[in-house]
Amino acid sequence: MADVIVTDGDETRLATVISALRTLLGDRLQTSAAVRDAHGHDESWHETHAPDAVAFAQTTAEVSEIVRICAASRMPVIAFGTGTSLEGQVSAVNGGVSLDLSLMNSVLKVHAEDLDCRVEAGVTRKQLNSYLRDTGLFFPIDPGADASLGGMAATRASGTNAVRYGTMRESVLSVTAVLATGEIIATGGRARKSAAGYDLTRLLVGSEGTLGVITELTLRLQGIPEAIAGGICPFDSLDGAVDAVIETIQTGLPIARIEVLDEVQVAACNAYSNLSLPLSSMLFLEFHGTTASVEEQSTRFAAIASDHGGGAFNWTTEPEERTRLWEARHNAYYASLALEPGKKGMTTDVCVPISNLARCLRETKEDLDASFLTAPIVGHVGDGNFHTIMLIDPDNVRDMAEARRLHDRMVRRALALEGTCTGEHGIGLGKIAFLEEEVGQAVDMMRTIKRALDPHNILNPGKIIAS
Amino acid sequence: MADVIVTDGDETRLATVISALRTLLGDRLQTSAAVRDAHGHDESWHETHAPDAVAFAQTTAEVSEIVRICAASRMPVIAFGTGTSLEGQVSAVNGGVSLDLSLMNSVLKVHAEDLDCRVEAGVTRKQLNSYLRDTGLFFPIDPGADASLGGMAATRASGTNAVRYGTMRESVLSVTAVLATGEIIATGGRARKSAAGYDLTRLLVGSEGTLGVITELTLRLQGIPEAIAGGICPFDSLDGAVDAVIETIQTGLPIARIEVLDEVQVAACNAYSNLSLPLSSMLFLEFHGTTASVEEQSTRFAAIASDHGGGAFNWTTEPEERTRLWEARHNAYYASLALEPGKKGMTTDVCVPISNLARCLRETKEDLDASFLTAPIVGHVGDGNFHTIMLIDPDNVRDMAEARRLHDRMVRRALALEGTCTGEHGIGLGKIAFLEEEVGQAVDMMRTIKRALDPHNILNPGKIIAS
Repeated sequence: MADVIVTDGDETRLATVISALRTLLGDRLQTSAAVRDAHGHDESWHETHAPDAVAFAQTTAEVSEIVRICAASRMPVIAFGTGTSLEGQVSAVNGGVSLDLSLMNSVLKVHAEDLDCRVEAGVTRKQLNSYLRDTGLFFPIDPGADASLGGMAATRASGTNAVRYGTMRESVLSVTAVLATGEIIATGGRARKSAAGYDLTRLLVGSEGTLGVITELTLRLQGIPEAIAGGICPFDSLDGAVDAVIETIQTGLPIARIEVLDEVQVAACNAYSNLSLPLSSMLFLEFHGTTASVEEQSTRFAAIASDHGGGAFNWTTEPEERTRLWEARHNAYYASLALEPGKKGMTTDVCVPISNLARCLRETKEDLDASFLTAPIVGHVGDGNFHTIMLIDPDNVRDMAEARRLHDRMVRRALALEGTCTGEHGIGLGKIAFLEEEVGQAVDMMRTIKRALDPHNILNPGKIIAS
Repeated sequence: MADVIVTDGDETRLATVISALRTLLGDRLQTSAAVRDAHGHDESWHETHAPDAVAFAQTTAEVSEIVRICAASRMPVIAFGTGTSLEGQVSAVNGGVSLDLSLMNSVLKVHAEDLDCRVEAGVTRKQLNSYLRDTGLFFPIDPGADASLGGMAATRASGTNAVRYGTMRESVLSVTAVLATGEIIATGGRARKSAAGYDLTRLLVGSEGTLGVITELTLRLQGIPEAIAGGICPFDSLDGAVDAVIETIQTGLPIARIEVLDEVQVAACNAYSNLSLPLSSMLFLEFHGTTASVEEQSTRFAAIASDHGGGAFNWTTEPEERTRLWEARHNAYYASLALEPGKKGMTTDVCVPISNLARCLRETKEDLDASFLTAPIVGHVGDGNFHTIMLIDPDNVRDMAEARRLHDRMVRRALALEGTCTGEHGIGLGKIAFLEEEVGQAVDMMRTIKRALDPHNILNPGKIIAS
């Protein structure tokens, strides 16, 4: 395929960078339209902005060299894992080089006795769990996609287990990263806790590739529990389901997963995953512990559920049925997209204090029910976090206007209820204005940090902060 | 008392600042030698550097005004809570104004249904728990001292419950802080998780007042468990005790507290707290959960302990005996000091991966046993974190040389074992060189952030990073 290169600016500058990168990487520098296009968008509705070239790095030293080459020409560098982000994080809005880390996919070390491991940034969560299969350990963070662990750290991802095991914020012990200068830093060791200086690990986690490129991570692992019990529970109403969640959390039941699906999402999952769940609001639950303790938790939850209009809570410790249900839950996003083939999903992701969750969900559901768009609701309600997936044709002006209206109302509702504009998807391109609404002048502090660490704005420009 | 003012530099500059602060604060600006001296040291061996004045703020707006006044004259500002830090964090090494937050001691709001609360920075941990008494909730982070919550956040404090409930890093949901410009920022809301931009909360937590002055905090609370079981277990050897800890953690027992004391510390606690514990290595333990689950955990631990040379593990759910033991544990630092009245304690605080804990503790114990200094060992061993308290006369050259030798060997041993130079006490004045050994070039990244946010180095200068 011909090298068809579209640049925002200076052709000479780009030629210099490409020539230097080709010398460094050989075939691992790609400039074909197909490869560039595939690196210019994520799984969201955000439009494609292809990079000018894609560099496939194999080592941290190579990442450093690539960043140095780009920095010398002030060329943007956009770190790329699996391209499964949901707010346009990998889009090359100013052109530049997509730095693909998928070849850095080695699990470097598992310290089973310390419940930690060291991985390269391109290792995916499923790959890691498959690697850990015989150790009695697992890595709990599970966004829907089989994302790379570097990308999950960069977007501060979470998922269904966060109510028990935390998010990437709590799961990353330290990282190796390449800064905008090309300098390689390591943020710490393997200690469980540390009070040694500024928390650079947490600063890089969630920085979406704008402060540094994460190349290696030390991750906390969890022991696979002796027993896992799980099941589903239908509810008369979304309100009832949410009230059951709130009481479950408030009574301190150490639940591992508690997820809500509205009847639209249940219908989508039935169709996509060949299930026959009743079409009502539904909780998916899981308890981890000893055999005695998961039985106690399940019984206690059943009593709470029946107080809030819940139907029979059939729980099981059998792995097969549980796995089938949770696979369906994990595929909720793809199931939603399949409701109207050819459409894109505009996802929103908010998180509120749990006492405000019922109201936030109810008002959102009323908005969606009144709209002509199809929009299932699904959420990690134990954390107060939920999503809608509005099915849209991005070229249809009416769809887009309606989706944006619903989106903005939902986010502003969450902010008014002391919540956040994103619980786990990040800011990317889609929520820059809302970040400013949420934290006000603190954005200036973010901007100061960004300018100090990346004065020429080469690391994933245009994301998180409007420059 | 006369205003005896010692400055490092320009008298006129100081007079300008004091005059402006007096206009703002009236009697709440203090310049007496007694008040200045009390604000020039913490509970550690580090020598006193008195500030030139002490400003007692009552509101965030006042803190902002104080910082603006100091910034205009490039005068250092050192935030001060209770002065219970252990690495010289509050020492006014360059003179300047100690900003005392102890009058900002209101619990602003408790959201019991969301398990969170909002407090001013001067509220102490015991004050908060006393306030929460009737809510069924508690705040778990418990360093030995009754420290202020602002100070605990600033030093990323932890304590005996961290193995179950995390440290200040996990317990602070968001803060309000005053930056070096005087600007007031709020880092977020009350959502349990957020992917909204850079994690400024975690950047300020642990920054020891060098990036901003924390004035208010939103904190996670925990539900008081239905049942608490606890007890002590003597061991034949420190190694045996540590091996029992490691197996307990690795089998996933959700222990709430697991603390080790060596026989020197046990003797100190016996004397100070009027106990008669056997003089051997000892574990203090606590289990939180339902009645059935704490019984199950206690029984499982007893079996693990007996495999590792543990004596009888007598556990109880009775609060009185438990409280007496845990008060003795919390007073371990003061008990150690009481072993040799008039001496100071040079504490060290390291944290290593748990698989390296036995070796790190054993080699440290051999060093201490061979020394002429008295030095008990006590530790939050579930996290791999432990302390020694070397009793010294800071004016005795031989004491100091020996303490420094032991200290440096212990810290370097922890670093060689993939640990950190401080698990919970922070860097302050005492560990600046070790931070550099631990994270290498990442200190440059910290320095870049510090210079960007505080270009004139007025916020707690001389701490964490050598400027």
